[in-house]
Amino acid sequence: MSCPAPHPFDEALALQRAGDGRFTGVMSQGYWNMAGPFGGMTAAILLKAVTLHPDLKGRPLSQTVNFCAAISADPFELETVLERDGRSTQHWRVTLRQNDSVAANATVVTGPHRDTWSSQPAAAPALRPHESLEAFDTAGRSGWFGRYEMRFDGGAPTLSGPAGASGDGQTRAWLRDEPPRPLDYPALASLADAFIPRVFLMRGVPGPAATVTLTTYFLASESELAAQGARPIAGVATPRAIKHGFHDQSAELWGDDGNLLAVSHQLVWFKD
Amino acid sequence: MSCPAPHPFDEALALQRAGDGRFTGVMSQGYWNMAGPFGGMTAAILLKAVTLHPDLKGRPLSQTVNFCAAISADPFELETVLERDGRSTQHWRVTLRQNDSVAANATVVTGPHRDTWSSQPAAAPALRPHESLEAFDTAGRSGWFGRYEMRFDGGAPTLSGPAGASGDGQTRAWLRDEPPRPLDYPALASLADAFIPRVFLMRGVPGPAATVTLTTYFLASESELAAQGARPIAGVATPRAIKHGFHDQSAELWGDDGNLLAVSHQLVWFKD
Repeated sequence: MSCPAPHPFDEALALQRAGDGRFTGVMSQGYWNMAGPFGGMTAAILLKAVTLHPDLKGRPLSQTVNFCAAISADPFELETVLERDGRSTQHWRVTLRQNDSVAANATVVTGPHRDTWSSQPAAAPALRPHESLEAFDTAGRSGWFGRYEMRFDGGAPTLSGPAGASGDGQTRAWLRDEPPRPLDYPALASLADAFIPRVFLMRGVPGPAATVTLTTYFLASESELAAQGARPIAGVATPRAIKHGFHDQSAELWGDDGNLLAVSHQLVWFKD
Repeated sequence: MSCPAPHPFDEALALQRAGDGRFTGVMSQGYWNMAGPFGGMTAAILLKAVTLHPDLKGRPLSQTVNFCAAISADPFELETVLERDGRSTQHWRVTLRQNDSVAANATVVTGPHRDTWSSQPAAAPALRPHESLEAFDTAGRSGWFGRYEMRFDGGAPTLSGPAGASGDGQTRAWLRDEPPRPLDYPALASLADAFIPRVFLMRGVPGPAATVTLTTYFLASESELAAQGARPIAGVATPRAIKHGFHDQSAELWGDDGNLLAVSHQLVWFKD
């Protein structure tokens, strides 16, 4: 009898329990970016620590991750604290320390499933069909690119110079893990950061830039994620304003049935 | 010689130093909502604590506030911790405790001013002129409403029943402190929460609802805030999806010269 190899995402999320809501781990080289781990992986690991906590009731509703400093390949320690436990929401604080300094932290809200009145005023993006778009060539790019299949319908990170600069800085793409993997909340937390800094697109060239803070609202229930499974999701990322060395960007992650699974917002630091 | 009376917003933000990044205070009855302080005031107080810290370098760039539990009229304690101090960003954690329990917390990013390449792909809302719109009648409403002048150009919180329900849940309005007060970061942090839960508008009736978590990005520099002064700003609030007892909403706060001052996002809990 042989067992299938674990998915690289699950390998990267492996944490060792160190008692009392504490965990240790090491960032996976398989999700490496230019000068540290892909920010989406950091978000996923901070969320994973909450999902492993014995006091968790329900599922993730929101997460804010602050990227406080560069994260290296050294071992890290995670501390999860349930700051307030309520009937409809639980409020968590997670701290990632490396060499005794805080390198990242997160606040996470979780809560039990409820069914209520619903409405979806946002319009799903009308992307061209997944199979009609070419998969982005990740050869020669940072490792984490290879862990996603991206089919861009505008706003690909081709960075062909000022002449190819995008006016609105918007990206529209089909996205999935590579190889395919059934969607869960850590995967959504990671996909929320899969859109490169909008300033790169708008100027047509890369440069020093990093996410400072990332907030994701998980709108989909567990059964909605199960229904989406491993099929590609539709993502749209849009900036509003770029100035004083920072810019915002918002991302929507849509199921292929037009169901909004998550929305995510971030503030990006950049240098001219 | 007589001195002008302090503005109610400044009175409400009064904190007593309790040493070592600690402060004490009491929530102002002047900004009371249905069952506790207006969430924007809580956000402003958590931000104010950071601006009072002697180690602050620069100005607020982002803030995430988590509303962990109901806040009462009892005294509260604030603790501010500089979790990581960097060259371009400082990462702060603020905790608001009441009767020894965490009632709210925040993470705040601050940083020194820089001038860089800039671009504003977002379009300013084309509101009808401020003076052509009637000021919203706040008589008989929760106290905090009276602390703002709101002139709605769609999406007023009139809540006239299902027949008056709004399909897209969007609000567009001119907003300013009442009486007028020069704009600063705590004021922006508060104004970011001045839009009622979108579910009220979309159903045409109020009900149990509360902001769970609120994230604001402060895009404007101090000189841009000074240039805006005490004149009304243009606000737009929009939801994307409402389901499973929660909904998102995003707000943009624009200067009257079409400059995007701040963007804010929140997740709202509601009950049917």
